[in-house]
Amino acid sequence: MGKGGQGKDGEEENMAAWLLGVNNLKIQPFKLPPLGPHDARIRMKAVGICGSDVHYLKMMKLADFVVKEPMVIGHECAGIIEEVGPEVKHLKPGDRVAVEPGISCWQCDLCKEGRYNLCPEMKFFATPPYHGSLANQIVHPADLCFKLPDNVSLEEGAMCEPLSVGVHACRRANVGPETNVLVMGAGPIGLVTMLAARAFGSPRIVIVDVDDHRLSVAKELGADEIVKVSTNINDVSAEVERIKKAMGGGVDISLDCAGFSKTMSTALGATSSGGKVCLVGMGHTEMTVPLAPAAFQVREVDVVGIFRYKNTWPLCLEFLRSGKIDVKPLITHRFGFSQNEVEEAFETSARGGNAIKVMFNL
Amino acid sequence: MGKGGQGKDGEEENMAAWLLGVNNLKIQPFKLPPLGPHDARIRMKAVGICGSDVHYLKMMKLADFVVKEPMVIGHECAGIIEEVGPEVKHLKPGDRVAVEPGISCWQCDLCKEGRYNLCPEMKFFATPPYHGSLANQIVHPADLCFKLPDNVSLEEGAMCEPLSVGVHACRRANVGPETNVLVMGAGPIGLVTMLAARAFGSPRIVIVDVDDHRLSVAKELGADEIVKVSTNINDVSAEVERIKKAMGGGVDISLDCAGFSKTMSTALGATSSGGKVCLVGMGHTEMTVPLAPAAFQVREVDVVGIFRYKNTWPLCLEFLRSGKIDVKPLITHRFGFSQNEVEEAFETSARGGNAIKVMFNL
Amino acid sequence: MGKGGQGKDGEEENMAAWLLGVNNLKIQPFKLPPLGPHDARIRMKAVGICGSDVHYLKMMKLADFVVKEPMVIGHECAGIIEEVGPEVKHLKPGDRVAVEPGISCWQCDLCKEGRYNLCPEMKFFATPPYHGSLANQIVHPADLCFKLPDNVSLEEGAMCEPLSVGVHACRRANVGPETNVLVMGAGPIGLVTMLAARAFGSPRIVIVDVDDHRLSVAKELGADEIVKVSTNINDVSAEVERIKKAMGGGVDISLDCAGFSKTMSTALGATSSGGKVCLVGMGHTEMTVPLAPAAFQVREVDVVGIFRYKNTWPLCLEFLRSGKIDVKPLITHRFGFSQNEVEEAFETSARGGNAIKVMFNL
Amino acid sequence: MGKGGQGKDGEEENMAAWLLGVNNLKIQPFKLPPLGPHDARIRMKAVGICGSDVHYLKMMKLADFVVKEPMVIGHECAGIIEEVGPEVKHLKPGDRVAVEPGISCWQCDLCKEGRYNLCPEMKFFATPPYHGSLANQIVHPADLCFKLPDNVSLEEGAMCEPLSVGVHACRRANVGPETNVLVMGAGPIGLVTMLAARAFGSPRIVIVDVDDHRLSVAKELGADEIVKVSTNINDVSAEVERIKKAMGGGVDISLDCAGFSKTMSTALGATSSGGKVCLVGMGHTEMTVPLAPAAFQVREVDVVGIFRYKNTWPLCLEFLRSGKIDVKPLITHRFGFSQNEVEEAFETSARGGNAIKVMFNL
Repeated sequence: MGKGGQGKDGEEENMAAWLLGVNNLKIQPFKLPPLGPHDARIRMKAVGICGSDVHYLKMMKLADFVVKEPMVIGHECAGIIEEVGPEVKHLKPGDRVAVEPGISCWQCDLCKEGRYNLCPEMKFFATPPYHGSLANQIVHPADLCFKLPDNVSLEEGAMCEPLSVGVHACRRANVGPETNVLVMGAGPIGLVTMLAARAFGSPRIVIVDVDDHRLSVAKELGADEIVKVSTNINDVSAEVERIKKAMGGGVDISLDCAGFSKTMSTALGATSSGGKVCLVGMGHTEMTVPLAPAAFQVREVDVVGIFRYKNTWPLCLEFLRSGKIDVKPLITHRFGFSQNEVEEAFETSARGGNAIKVMFNL
Repeated sequence: MGKGGQGKDGEEENMAAWLLGVNNLKIQPFKLPPLGPHDARIRMKAVGICGSDVHYLKMMKLADFVVKEPMVIGHECAGIIEEVGPEVKHLKPGDRVAVEPGISCWQCDLCKEGRYNLCPEMKFFATPPYHGSLANQIVHPADLCFKLPDNVSLEEGAMCEPLSVGVHACRRANVGPETNVLVMGAGPIGLVTMLAARAFGSPRIVIVDVDDHRLSVAKELGADEIVKVSTNINDVSAEVERIKKAMGGGVDISLDCAGFSKTMSTALGATSSGGKVCLVGMGHTEMTVPLAPAAFQVREVDVVGIFRYKNTWPLCLEFLRSGKIDVKPLITHRFGFSQNEVEEAFETSARGGNAIKVMFNL
Repeated sequence: MGKGGQGKDGEEENMAAWLLGVNNLKIQPFKLPPLGPHDARIRMKAVGICGSDVHYLKMMKLADFVVKEPMVIGHECAGIIEEVGPEVKHLKPGDRVAVEPGISCWQCDLCKEGRYNLCPEMKFFATPPYHGSLANQIVHPADLCFKLPDNVSLEEGAMCEPLSVGVHACRRANVGPETNVLVMGAGPIGLVTMLAARAFGSPRIVIVDVDDHRLSVAKELGADEIVKVSTNINDVSAEVERIKKAMGGGVDISLDCAGFSKTMSTALGATSSGGKVCLVGMGHTEMTVPLAPAAFQVREVDVVGIFRYKNTWPLCLEFLRSGKIDVKPLITHRFGFSQNEVEEAFETSARGGNAIKVMFNL
Repeated sequence: MGKGGQGKDGEEENMAAWLLGVNNLKIQPFKLPPLGPHDARIRMKAVGICGSDVHYLKMMKLADFVVKEPMVIGHECAGIIEEVGPEVKHLKPGDRVAVEPGISCWQCDLCKEGRYNLCPEMKFFATPPYHGSLANQIVHPADLCFKLPDNVSLEEGAMCEPLSVGVHACRRANVGPETNVLVMGAGPIGLVTMLAARAFGSPRIVIVDVDDHRLSVAKELGADEIVKVSTNINDVSAEVERIKKAMGGGVDISLDCAGFSKTMSTALGATSSGGKVCLVGMGHTEMTVPLAPAAFQVREVDVVGIFRYKNTWPLCLEFLRSGKIDVKPLITHRFGFSQNEVEEAFETSARGGNAIKVMFNL
């Protein structure tokens, strides 16, 4: 699998998974751009499916981003260096690398101030109009390719992308050895965020979800306590009390990995004076949240949102190398890179159920 | 005015304005507690009326605080030291002082971490069950009495209290010479917050209100641009565009001094990537606000609330001393301390109109 | 041991170890002050000897502090509550507590800003003219008494004091999962600082000393690499290279727990661009350090000093409870509370050798 | 002046001031590199002389940087856009711009974290082996060219470079409306740093120098108090007392713009508990400074160094536009761009005396 087709002159032809329309994903040739002096050409070996990939497949859009032209999908990836441009010093063919998907401009104020994830000119894998990385090969800036430690697999390398979300959330919320953490939502992002919070030293983590299976996975992966909740907005007060009891002390930081009106309301209600709520998930696009005095103001609870991540790959790789984080249990399904398998893989991810992370091995 | 009654033995009797019920405020004797070793006894000379005082008079409650017993009202105050306890070194009788109203416990984690304004054991003037300071004399910890510079009047000293709210907001939001500031609301708190933002160095301030008179006062007090808005929630998008145009550049920090669903929605919509929104006012107790991805998350706009203030008096006095802030134009009405005048003063403040700050001279 | 003498009316007489002169330490009666409403009376059970205690015994002074009157010594302590004042809610007789030694004023700017360790009015155990805690019983503010978790011993409770130094250093230097740490000096403070850095998540720690035994202890306690150095100032450059090699990457933070001209020079030389050096130890009182451009300025290496600690007991107890830190191996010698044993204990601590922490069990 | 020579085909030939050896500066042709898509070609109109330029002229080196090949000198500059590359959107020919001199790599960790001034691959004007900007024309990345407000002159634009040093120092030291500032040294960098500290809101600034003329200039430019000191290291204690008295309160931040052992010792001694010392100047390359407990550690005074600046041009231009900073009085001497004038200008700058900033008008 993953060899690509044969071009007319016997050379391998680079193939990719193209999003052509709603529920229409086809493996077709993908012509690579020329290799620039600071670029690397990478043979993809592991590509995970993200909720946003599924969202694009089902809706052809996400928030303000609309797929207007055929687009290669995929952005959680790792592979092996095939070739590097003449200015690249830190990589050579054969190196195994995890790939950070976003190329920022480095000319705007936000880039220069170190907040490149907010760059208005960001070119991000599989965010229209930019192609993604579910392909045999891609060309990408070499400084966004991070060499894997020997004991970190290519699949784990691909997991750096979702893990980066959790890491960025923990950094923005300032999770550490003094902060009890509440995680709202035990889906893939909730789970990696929980693992990140633990790796940042949180002494006590309570995780909340509506689904028993997800909660049991969270418990196995290290949650101190799990709290099952409803989807009924009227239960917020009672659930806040159950969460506080499960925590057995103040909730210093809440990481809302679901992103619904109810989860944010719960997070705001549960967080202690002087604490922080970080909105990680993007469940509701039209969420309304009580920001009334009693909800957060008189307690000076800060609310921060996160958008993707920045400077996270080195730390993710260190967490994986040292064993502080083990993402392998999150990879529940694996597929090859054929038309049938691609379709089946996306359906598996879309169904949810006991699937957490669905991974392609190319 | 302000002499107090005569006690049975010819001694002056200390009088105060007691809140006895809805719209029922009476000047009655107020027995002072004994002077502790670290306390000061202060003769009140200037006491301002705050919106919260009016709210208590009209409702006998504010948020979760309910007036169950007769309570002396008032908390924006300055006066002259009459007597100090034996351990007090920095004050002596005759000193003119501005008074910080809240006594925190200094034993809880929040106090010890420097966030004493969040102390759960806070004893705050005119917040039930604690008495306020609209009285001939009060007894208060001397470390909460701040000596006035020679060129700062007692009325200006009393204005340190509302000004402290603006100062704390600017600190929490990190206003400085690099941050364009949007102020939502041109009432008393909006105006002092605007003055504070200027004193913190903001190069450009746009202020927004529904009232022409308030906006014209704001312009006179130094706003770069004023924007009149409606109370219609459907106008948010259009008003955001008008605000951005008035700013002529990014809005780095929005200080919502109104605290309504619409003002927060506008503030969130107007603030640039990486910016901050600070909720200062408490208009709605059940505000709901769009925290959807497009509204603030993808731009990583932080939302912070403020509750009162901490460590603000020295800075307020320095701003007043140096002339960086002039609060005198805000004092629009003055009253003496008789039963009739107290009632009239509160009615004047409650009516609003062209009244900004109503002040008692005792 | 530790029963105290008998007073004239059959009541137990409280005894303490008094520093009377150079090398002159005597167990004598120590009259307790009255119990205030917020105080606790604590029966001391474990008291450790600190380098500063030994320094006072040998010199009758430390830095600017001079012992002019007989002073009870000791400040690393834990015990059992005997009695609490009427306002104390969180403790009751029989509770096992670790004791924070410093009483700050809570009236100065530094206290109010949350930097109470810098309070100019600080009353600190065994820092003249204030008495220490090597006594049968002491009276102390109850908010400075922290209840021990069930699985934390009284000796471990006493170790919170030196551990607090390491914790405060890690906080000030911002040690975390992304910072490689260099620790200069493997004495008691170097070791607890190393343990704290690990608990704060440092992925890689190199520790440096002149003594083989100390280094071998550090290695056993978890240092990734040890580097033996000389006391020769001319070796700095070569040793910096050896340290960098041992680190195998940048030194993000250096914690100088020795505090000599040479150790600071080495720390400054070894720390990477944008890193931090924290001066923890107080070896030289007249240290001179190269702060030349090449040494730290062009790399924007920040230099921070620490003085004692603040708000550290809860975190220390959590580290001990969770097992993230194990201080038990540091307690190498134990003594009872008799005249002979007190003298012997101090001599043992003063000799150094293989003694790390010398502990009294009262 | 400043027209350049004539090339062989009648086209203007670009001329520059080349540093050829010690005290050997020659105007010679300077071939421009090709204009890249993101570049601008700028006709230089104002170029200031910096102390480092003089240092290179006299020594052919500065710190670790050695001039091995002929090098165009100059780095404080502003000019007029002649041509921009096809990707440049924010500039067009005829625009007046101030130029930031350093080109960082945007691929290393430090660049990506927003500390690009520490980039190890930095290419900086007139820092060997990179050419400077004392030339008729230069080619430079357009994102480092900042359009001048209408009321800011080209000379003021060139002053953004030294002013940036002061601005970066104030940012790193966190100067604001609550921080009394001590400035050590009233040379060009001391003066711009003082102006920056005022613009950041410092309520009180004391400046110190050995030279009466410099001090009188500082007083005219707005210092609250001036203190004349000696060069004798033994005077530190007495001078610290005089400085404290002149400040009339705590010194919150000291900005050492001289950078000698004595000035740093004085700054450390004068700064209050919890304050900061920022090392700005680079007087001594082998400075030794007392970092003893009493000097800074027990007061937790942080020491930070600065290296150049980052993200400062927009703020400098805003300060100049608004009039918060007026740099015009600092420009004491002006020269044209001929061989004779270049030599004379550098001699004028090297002599010091009453020269503050020497400026070329090309």
